[in-house]
Amino acid sequence: MRIARLRTPAGPRHVVQREDAWVEVVSLTDHTPTGASHPLDGAHLLAPCEPVLVLGAAHNSGPEGRELPQQAFQKSARTVVGPGEPILREPGLGSLVVECELAVVIARSARHVRPEEVESVVLGYTVGNDVTLMDQTERDGLLLQAKNGEGFTPLGPWIETGWLGEEGARDVLDGGDVGMQTLVDGHVAADSSVARLGWTIREQIVHLTRYLTLGPGDVVLTGSPGTGAPVEAGQLARVRIAGIGELANPVELHPGAGRPTG
Amino acid sequence: MRIARLRTPAGPRHVVQREDAWVEVVSLTDHTPTGASHPLDGAHLLAPCEPVLVLGAAHNSGPEGRELPQQAFQKSARTVVGPGEPILREPGLGSLVVECELAVVIARSARHVRPEEVESVVLGYTVGNDVTLMDQTERDGLLLQAKNGEGFTPLGPWIETGWLGEEGARDVLDGGDVGMQTLVDGHVAADSSVARLGWTIREQIVHLTRYLTLGPGDVVLTGSPGTGAPVEAGQLARVRIAGIGELANPVELHPGAGRPTG
Repeated sequence: MRIARLRTPAGPRHVVQREDAWVEVVSLTDHTPTGASHPLDGAHLLAPCEPVLVLGAAHNSGPEGRELPQQAFQKSARTVVGPGEPILREPGLGSLVVECELAVVIARSARHVRPEEVESVVLGYTVGNDVTLMDQTERDGLLLQAKNGEGFTPLGPWIETGWLGEEGARDVLDGGDVGMQTLVDGHVAADSSVARLGWTIREQIVHLTRYLTLGPGDVVLTGSPGTGAPVEAGQLARVRIAGIGELANPVELHPGAGRPTG
Repeated sequence: MRIARLRTPAGPRHVVQREDAWVEVVSLTDHTPTGASHPLDGAHLLAPCEPVLVLGAAHNSGPEGRELPQQAFQKSARTVVGPGEPILREPGLGSLVVECELAVVIARSARHVRPEEVESVVLGYTVGNDVTLMDQTERDGLLLQAKNGEGFTPLGPWIETGWLGEEGARDVLDGGDVGMQTLVDGHVAADSSVARLGWTIREQIVHLTRYLTLGPGDVVLTGSPGTGAPVEAGQLARVRIAGIGELANPVELHPGAGRPTG
């Protein structure tokens, strides 16, 4: 099943795809139809969920990450944008990189999740772009300066729940081979697979919920296995995950750029 | 003016104090009365705001912090609790410390704030308790493991806006002498002042908004100038700031403690 969030004249609405229409539902996790529906064509897709927490995996750009301790960082929920919304680039803060990541959307309140319980806390998957100011990662080991610019967490276009079938879904949690691509202005800049992640999604959910509580709509960006590509203002960043879809966001110059900031 | 948030039969409501009553208002930042009011006595106070972002100041436990670069960390908004709500202590994660901190509540969307604009983005101040698992700060330099347990960000009892008058308010932004105390089971465990912070509040707001966007209700915990005290389950943690008030939270054993977590 595909779950999306649409801009409608009545405001943002959660929807699920049924044949040739987006059918409005009660909420992200309650898929009871409300009676309204919208044509697929011309629908204005928003970020498919509204996370309180956006978490990212450190040391997960490849198998060598397993040699370091499992660690994670937070991104501001104010960085979340949907398909087509701009990623804002500021001069003076160094190079900007886009990173295709498989994004897990959490189904329910979850703490102390055991490995065998992970399936029950995952609502589905969407495509995430973990935009990062690379030079700031060296200046600020806490990663706050690198990860929280405007438009730095594009999510979408929708959440897939059935996706690869029950077996495939289990497989993804443990490092299944699912293609990931990053494109800049139509050129494939990076081509990788979920299988190249050092720490699996199952391991990540267990680790995170040992220390904090996740809730419905929260997002875990599971790492960038060689999927990063530098971008400049004026370029179009596209991130793709096989079986889910493609998320495209233009990179634009920050309108406040050059303003003195003390 | 005092702004609070109350539990009412109709749900949580923002209120302001008028003589002998809490008067309901439209929102945290729109203080138009809705017509309802509640007696001061017996009012059930909640955390006075609902931040999207909770930020904490690193290297700000004293003047020596100025020798390190200005840095900040994020805390999960899911850690926010109000007066009287428990801080949950888990065995196996090392020592737990409570820290009295002056908490700035943000008034409006704010990015690239100049030093002379800081007054205009501060709604007011409340008392914050930046609960921290001290041993985890050594294991996880990203601080995710140390800062995000359940009940780890008590806030309250209310937001003071007029507080020390216009001059005093300006003074606090630049390191004014405002008393801070941490009490454990009625004993004063730490006694300090906002003046002992290494980086001032004005400097912190300028720094943060260089890298991210703050919004209404967001909270900046401005640092713990020697205000930390270790606590155990069964103890009562109280944090006080002169002119604002006192925030008391019991420390309780996590009900999931001892459960295998993989």
